[in-house]
Amino acid sequence: MIEQTVAGIPRAFDAKTAHAVAERWDSLTKPRGSLGVLEACVMKLAAIQGSAMPRVKRQCVYVFCGDHGITEEGVSPYPSVVTREMVKNFVLGGAAINVLCRQLGIQTRIVDSGLAGPRLEGVIDRRVADGTRNFLHEPAMSMEQARLAIERGIELASEASGEFDLVAVGEMGIGNTTSASALLCALTGATADEAAGRGAGLDDAGLSRKREVLTAALKKHATHPREPLHLLSAFGGFEIAMMAGFLLGAARHGLAVVVDGFISGTAVLVARAFYPNLGDHVFFGHRSAEKAHELLLTEAGAVPLLDLGLRLGEGTGAAMAMGILTSAVTLYREMATFAEAAVSDIPSERERER
Amino acid sequence: MIEQTVAGIPRAFDAKTAHAVAERWDSLTKPRGSLGVLEACVMKLAAIQGSAMPRVKRQCVYVFCGDHGITEEGVSPYPSVVTREMVKNFVLGGAAINVLCRQLGIQTRIVDSGLAGPRLEGVIDRRVADGTRNFLHEPAMSMEQARLAIERGIELASEASGEFDLVAVGEMGIGNTTSASALLCALTGATADEAAGRGAGLDDAGLSRKREVLTAALKKHATHPREPLHLLSAFGGFEIAMMAGFLLGAARHGLAVVVDGFISGTAVLVARAFYPNLGDHVFFGHRSAEKAHELLLTEAGAVPLLDLGLRLGEGTGAAMAMGILTSAVTLYREMATFAEAAVSDIPSERERER
Repeated sequence: MIEQTVAGIPRAFDAKTAHAVAERWDSLTKPRGSLGVLEACVMKLAAIQGSAMPRVKRQCVYVFCGDHGITEEGVSPYPSVVTREMVKNFVLGGAAINVLCRQLGIQTRIVDSGLAGPRLEGVIDRRVADGTRNFLHEPAMSMEQARLAIERGIELASEASGEFDLVAVGEMGIGNTTSASALLCALTGATADEAAGRGAGLDDAGLSRKREVLTAALKKHATHPREPLHLLSAFGGFEIAMMAGFLLGAARHGLAVVVDGFISGTAVLVARAFYPNLGDHVFFGHRSAEKAHELLLTEAGAVPLLDLGLRLGEGTGAAMAMGILTSAVTLYREMATFAEAAVSDIPSERERER
Repeated sequence: MIEQTVAGIPRAFDAKTAHAVAERWDSLTKPRGSLGVLEACVMKLAAIQGSAMPRVKRQCVYVFCGDHGITEEGVSPYPSVVTREMVKNFVLGGAAINVLCRQLGIQTRIVDSGLAGPRLEGVIDRRVADGTRNFLHEPAMSMEQARLAIERGIELASEASGEFDLVAVGEMGIGNTTSASALLCALTGATADEAAGRGAGLDDAGLSRKREVLTAALKKHATHPREPLHLLSAFGGFEIAMMAGFLLGAARHGLAVVVDGFISGTAVLVARAFYPNLGDHVFFGHRSAEKAHELLLTEAGAVPLLDLGLRLGEGTGAAMAMGILTSAVTLYREMATFAEAAVSDIPSERERER
């Protein structure tokens, strides 16, 4: 299913659409190009949706949740049970992502990608297993589980494409910055020192322990092929694998995705390993305060929409970036043209050349 | 009135309020400090409003409009009449700022600070004169007019403080980047080459002409004292002077102001010349694509909330930044605490030290 999905991803560019979008932007009552990144965003949305009048009306943030065996090694200041407690908080509507989505008119879907413990009400059950295994000692998951997680992500995106115009991916999983950092190292050649950050708030001793764990784990799995399924199997996590699948499935269906921060960013790197032009189909929501995000953004050649020093995850930065994209599309759709408003225009370069 | 207003500005800090805000942020279900700039913004709003539970419910963007005699020198690609045409567009609701404010639930007030031609319906009439004079040949306005413009801004802010929780300043005035650049040079010692930018879209020849005009105008008014009223008199414009007054008046009344881009940024520099700590009372909305804005931000020691390559004015960047501030306050007010959500917390440094 993965190979078929990748083969079916349409190219996110059509000269006629691009021309129509540029013409409309230039007809609106403002100096040409003066809406900067907002103009570029609408151009990209139009390319992804294959329409010169892109839509962002129905929006949803998908929060992929999973538990991590690597937490046994003390790589997070929070106990592993907080993943589950926060999922309950999502369901009750008290977490940051709930508040933002209510404010911004965005729906939320909470996905159990691989939580430990009993099933939870109000959560979309796509659990692959009860948390990953401790990847310091063994692979985080089997190859079959890695494939299954990706496929479930593809399926979710296929369903989402019928329901929503714009979606975002975020995550929750105590310990998942360690998986993300390991993937970053394996996919880009970064060192453990470069890739390890403070996550949810490690102190110096904790950060140093996390570096040691990462170094040892990378050494242990060094003979794993540098192929995405193998690397997901080695380092996890279920939520990262499912997000990677979701990104591929969304691209296949012309559904634009806003990516949150560091962990969801590694899902982009994984998805790019299957489909190198995936960047044409996603927006990077924000620049995270997690140290290695900068490295990841450089690797992905991405400039995120926001830079607010966030490091919370859950899709919070992506949700706020959806607000920016909504502004961009609303301006594009609703501003008066020079002709409508009887405002004097100056000829464009294009017109002067005629 | 200016001196009295400045003398009455309260200090935007209270240790008890700051402590209460920090305690509340730390009680909410997220890693401590993980909302980054959003946490700092709420802290600053609380300081300005003098309340540990700041409000942003009632919002308004004030768009200050004026005409500029300097347009005779060909410093803008657009004809001067576009100022008036765009004001009509504001009144009819077709401009970028109208679209953004509708989307974001923000009111708009269009202020005639010094338009040329007949009075316009739907506009708050605070006109000081029918446009500034050509400051290449004579002062843009008299000292009395500069003072009057500032005083009218102070009065508007005083009224606004009874109506709104959060306001923004933006502007419209063909030619006003030339006034703004001249003020920047006079207030900071920047050269004409550093301060001149492409404004609404000058080509290379136009930019070079603008630099020459600036250089000549700075030379002509070089003996003017480096005092804000003298400099406003020399270089204009009415909308910049009125925004400077508005900023001082808002600070006096504990009303937080979001400043838009380059031109409104120079109003901050002018207001700072009256009250050096003015920066404690304002938020810089965004980093403009107008070249000299970077220099202005450095001078003001400011890091803006957004960086989207905008160079449209009208308050567009400020309006979008109000969306960010609204998110910050909504998170702060509505997120569940660790206790409410029964999420396991880790002890804070403060608690560990006890």
